[in-house]
Amino acid sequence: MKRFYFQKIKWCALFAVLIFASALIVSSQVVFAADSPKYVFLFIGDGMGLPQKMAAEKYIGKKLVMNSLSAHGVTTTNAADRFITGSAAAATAIATGMKTNIGFIGMDSNQKPLKSIAQIAKEKGMKAGIVTSVSIDHATPAAFYANVPSRSQYYDIAVALAKSGFDYFGGGGMKDPANKRENSLNFQGDALELAKKNGYRVVTKKQEFLALKPSKEKILAYNEWLQDGGALSYALDMREQDISLAEFTAKGIELLDNPKGFFMMVEGGKIDWACHANDGAASIHDTLAFDEAVKHAYDFYKAHPKKTLIVVTGDHETGGMALGFAGTRYESNFKVLNNQSVSFQRFGDEILAEFKKKESNKVFDAIKPLITKYFGLKFDGGTQDSMVLQSYEIDRLKSAFERSMAGDTEEKSYDPEVYLLYGGYDPLSITLTHILNQKAGMAWTSYKHTAVPIATSAAGLQAEAFNGYYDNTDIALKIMSIMGSGDKPVYEKQSQNQTAMVQGR
Amino acid sequence: MKRFYFQKIKWCALFAVLIFASALIVSSQVVFAADSPKYVFLFIGDGMGLPQKMAAEKYIGKKLVMNSLSAHGVTTTNAADRFITGSAAAATAIATGMKTNIGFIGMDSNQKPLKSIAQIAKEKGMKAGIVTSVSIDHATPAAFYANVPSRSQYYDIAVALAKSGFDYFGGGGMKDPANKRENSLNFQGDALELAKKNGYRVVTKKQEFLALKPSKEKILAYNEWLQDGGALSYALDMREQDISLAEFTAKGIELLDNPKGFFMMVEGGKIDWACHANDGAASIHDTLAFDEAVKHAYDFYKAHPKKTLIVVTGDHETGGMALGFAGTRYESNFKVLNNQSVSFQRFGDEILAEFKKKESNKVFDAIKPLITKYFGLKFDGGTQDSMVLQSYEIDRLKSAFERSMAGDTEEKSYDPEVYLLYGGYDPLSITLTHILNQKAGMAWTSYKHTAVPIATSAAGLQAEAFNGYYDNTDIALKIMSIMGSGDKPVYEKQSQNQTAMVQGR
Repeated sequence: MKRFYFQKIKWCALFAVLIFASALIVSSQVVFAADSPKYVFLFIGDGMGLPQKMAAEKYIGKKLVMNSLSAHGVTTTNAADRFITGSAAAATAIATGMKTNIGFIGMDSNQKPLKSIAQIAKEKGMKAGIVTSVSIDHATPAAFYANVPSRSQYYDIAVALAKSGFDYFGGGGMKDPANKRENSLNFQGDALELAKKNGYRVVTKKQEFLALKPSKEKILAYNEWLQDGGALSYALDMREQDISLAEFTAKGIELLDNPKGFFMMVEGGKIDWACHANDGAASIHDTLAFDEAVKHAYDFYKAHPKKTLIVVTGDHETGGMALGFAGTRYESNFKVLNNQSVSFQRFGDEILAEFKKKESNKVFDAIKPLITKYFGLKFDGGTQDSMVLQSYEIDRLKSAFERSMAGDTEEKSYDPEVYLLYGGYDPLSITLTHILNQKAGMAWTSYKHTAVPIATSAAGLQAEAFNGYYDNTDIALKIMSIMGSGDKPVYEKQSQNQTAMVQGR
Repeated sequence: MKRFYFQKIKWCALFAVLIFASALIVSSQVVFAADSPKYVFLFIGDGMGLPQKMAAEKYIGKKLVMNSLSAHGVTTTNAADRFITGSAAAATAIATGMKTNIGFIGMDSNQKPLKSIAQIAKEKGMKAGIVTSVSIDHATPAAFYANVPSRSQYYDIAVALAKSGFDYFGGGGMKDPANKRENSLNFQGDALELAKKNGYRVVTKKQEFLALKPSKEKILAYNEWLQDGGALSYALDMREQDISLAEFTAKGIELLDNPKGFFMMVEGGKIDWACHANDGAASIHDTLAFDEAVKHAYDFYKAHPKKTLIVVTGDHETGGMALGFAGTRYESNFKVLNNQSVSFQRFGDEILAEFKKKESNKVFDAIKPLITKYFGLKFDGGTQDSMVLQSYEIDRLKSAFERSMAGDTEEKSYDPEVYLLYGGYDPLSITLTHILNQKAGMAWTSYKHTAVPIATSAAGLQAEAFNGYYDNTDIALKIMSIMGSGDKPVYEKQSQNQTAMVQGR
């Protein structure tokens, strides 16, 4: 009898396991299973709302990788003290699960330091990597390894980086490693030297970078040539010898992979900068470059489907980009954006700067060939050709050209009406992108961020948790919970969302 | 031995069933369970994208009911032949699951008639109701009961309504029941009379409406006073004696409830009209009125949680509304919108029309008190008071006033620059809402629709199916599938989304 009983239980157990497994397969995926992902990716498109994603999708005529993930949510973004958030407060929310004030990095509203997902990953024995297309000490990346009350403390942030112990930093450079601008009272020597002393190998040459192999060395890599503010080029301006955001991401995966897994944050930071400047083509190309980075993680996920979680979000929308313009009514023609071959930044920094050197160029006629060459806008031609400028558009360009040649910038444009036109940017460059965007059927309302919710998507282990309507702080809390740090939440979540929404100006 | 074997199997089976059941409970809810909902609600906010929802949420300082539902998705909206959709093509997609051309109602691109969810519900023996805040023959409601190649065939649509056999129509009136404007060759007598002959009781008085009780009678109810184009008032202009969208919805639930269940579509149609006119306060109040209608369905769902499905979507975004304006940079102040006490429509139709009657009113000074009274904008006062107009704002109002007094409308404003300013609306009214919106930190890019994806939410039975990133056609296909019409899909879904996206201009 005893033997029979034992056999019966054995049979039953086998049968039950089979039934249990098939039930799980038949039903939808299990939310919050016991297993934690070994590989966690968090992608943040800075300034990337739904308009930015849809513009890029329309431009290439096929679905973005980030829009193809299995889970999708709508995410509110407000800061603790303002309805329209900033990158520091938003990144702190996404990195730590806590609402904070504008400008704060890794600290709550009372300046209490907070622990980020990346730091939690390190504590769990995972490796951690931070990648961005802007400077590596910029607000978004900084919120994952630094704790300072002002995002402008670039030296202090660089020191925090050097002391972070994170395994991989890739993308843009440092803005103030020598404490020349910040004049921090807590000077600890050159931050780059400190990083080296702490075991970081600094790599800037593309060949050397591409040849990197996994080792015990920590890596701090940035592209040799940096375009503006210590950042990578706009994707539209990228040259063969530059390391792209996708390459920094792919190398990160290669270097970080290890038996204990890793957490990697990748920021598409120049989407935001392009949108501040209302440059639609630059925004689209940087969104596509960001999506290419996502694709590397997605391919990795397909190879490790049961061990990987990918979350793709934005920190806020920038520019009030809309896929419709009064002048073009119901029509769109995104193909005209193909005519733009340089970003507003490169046009101003290189082409216009060179042009201004010649005294005889002070007349509007002189700039016309360059406008046609770099933006495709024509001064003559039939009415059939949508690239031929209308007389009122030429008037706008003429006024902008005159202001550009006079060297007007934000400092000089206190006149609110002038600010509405140019937002403190080079007047000619921004008028060119405005006009070209409008011909595409795309328009803008601001040179700053806006408060419309953004979209989050996710794939992989427990990705279903990212379906729904939730706050940006929930992104961190969900990831922490999924990573197994959620049993006793690191930070008790206050009823932040509602409070902040009411309080936020 | 045999007996033991039998017992063993019995034990195993019981054990297995228990395990199976607990697996189902432990795992997330099963998508597409066998049960179909008895009550199906489809809410369509016309012109309601994420900005419209967030603006309303920010204005009242608490979460909208539609944002509190359990499931959320991102929905693409393009028409078969245009990137920026129109209400007819979008409503046909949402009602039938098929992409179609601009202007088509309940027909595919080849003008083949399509069956709507409401018609399928009727075939299944359920009751069907259609509610809208605009005219009952307008594009969105029409796509649920009519099949015509042009949304302007208002008489033909009215005849289709009279013949639909649907149980309840509520909201706005008919635009052309007597075939006076359309001159349809298929004249079948006055459509309202035809409806009565087909068993509809026509109700327009609020008292009579509120007293209606469930019966075998079919009901065609519209508010006695209609503001513009056969529509209900803007919520901002609504008077005590008017029937609200929420009241039409609540009465619909009461009248339609029956043992075989019902399908009800409710459209918030004037959100779109407010946004075409760039009237932020009117958009917010109509979005809130729409959310109040959703609340009635949500309360009903809470009473019948296992029998109800609610889906809330939009057909497209209108106006390129952004929650950020260049002039106010990072600041928002939605409280200033409290100062607007009438919609642009009522201001133009009633206040300005009365004002214009007096010859001495032709000077700008004469309109100032009315501007202050109805929009809160002041011509004198300290710089602290954000409601005091800046000199360049006063200049904009003066120019607009002069054009308004000269009777300029769309027909006269062929000048593209003038169109950018006023969009064919009364110049003074739209300049007033533009300026007030901008003070709130809200701005617009168009007087038409835009192509940014909208957000869909859902609650109730199988609501999980509405998580994700999907096309507007998928909304119909998901509902049909959930209603149990999905075993052999009514229409084979082509790879419409991708095709249309690439083809769409």
